Amino acid sequence: MTVLPSAGSESDREMLAVALAEARAGLAEGGIPIGGALFAADGTLLGRGRNRRVQEDDPSIHGETDAFRKAGRQRSYRGTTMVTTLSPCWYCSGLIRQFGIGRLVIGESRTFTGGHDWLADDAGVEVVLLDDPDCVRMMTDFIAARPDLWNEDIGVD
Amino acid sequence: MTVLPSAGSESDREMLAVALAEARAGLAEGGIPIGGALFAADGTLLGRGRNRRVQEDDPSIHGETDAFRKAGRQRSYRGTTMVTTLSPCWYCSGLIRQFGIGRLVIGESRTFTGGHDWLADDAGVEVVLLDDPDCVRMMTDFIAARPDLWNEDIGVD
Repeated sequence: MTVLPSAGSESDREMLAVALAEARAGLAEGGIPIGGALFAADGTLLGRGRNRRVQEDDPSIHGETDAFRKAGRQRSYRGTTMVTTLSPCWYCSGLIRQFGIGRLVIGESRTFTGGHDWLADDAGVEVVLLDDPDCVRMMTDFIAARPDLWNEDIGVD
Repeated sequence: MTVLPSAGSESDREMLAVALAEARAGLAEGGIPIGGALFAADGTLLGRGRNRRVQEDDPSIHGETDAFRKAGRQRSYRGTTMVTTLSPCWYCSGLIRQFGIGRLVIGESRTFTGGHDWLADDAGVEVVLLDDPDCVRMMTDFIAARPDLWNEDIGVD
């Protein structure tokens, strides 16, 4: 099943703003502009983060894995929502599935589509795809400017 | 398709010994005994690592992600082999798929089965499942001793 874009709720858009601020901070640092944030069921922010491949020379830190890491050790991810500016790659989709993160809010999937349909179909994740124009513009500009770095980050050689 | 255990090659068993040494070092530190290593096509060790949830209070560092991180930024993973003492969870399976790691050598999948059949079927990864008795014993003992910590590490609540 292909997840179709929707307007989402006001709270979804507010959560996306946190991830987008992370992505923009990453861009200002010379990094890859992808941000993420993990929220508890009651809306509490558990962790926020951004891709740190360039900043920390670390290929294992994508926006979602950084948000997950910053949230620290949790006994359960029941009811949590992961928000990300870009459709999660297989690595980050696997994270969401393994830890039972039940909801995923995505800024856009025009510039890249990872595993979000798989999460919806095979793992029962509620996926909200926002098609946010600011997210689309940011990644479009970045990919045009730094195709080498972008391909490195998603393992395209 | 279910990947069946095999004896593997001598080089597979030598690579597993590196991951097993990492897992044992983690156990000695009070951590979760899962180790990994990433090798280039010519057999060069690129990175080795272990689960660091306890040691660094970091839920994002599994054996495979630590080995990947320790290998640093790579322009291509073509021809690489990921070796792990235990069947990779969805998070680590997603890593292998996203970065195009073509070969996976697994110590055992008796105590836990993650996404290795999916990698073989849907991502064309060559999977070697060794069914190593030392790996089985180590994880069996660990899970019996620390079921709470084990469940936390795989997101079972």
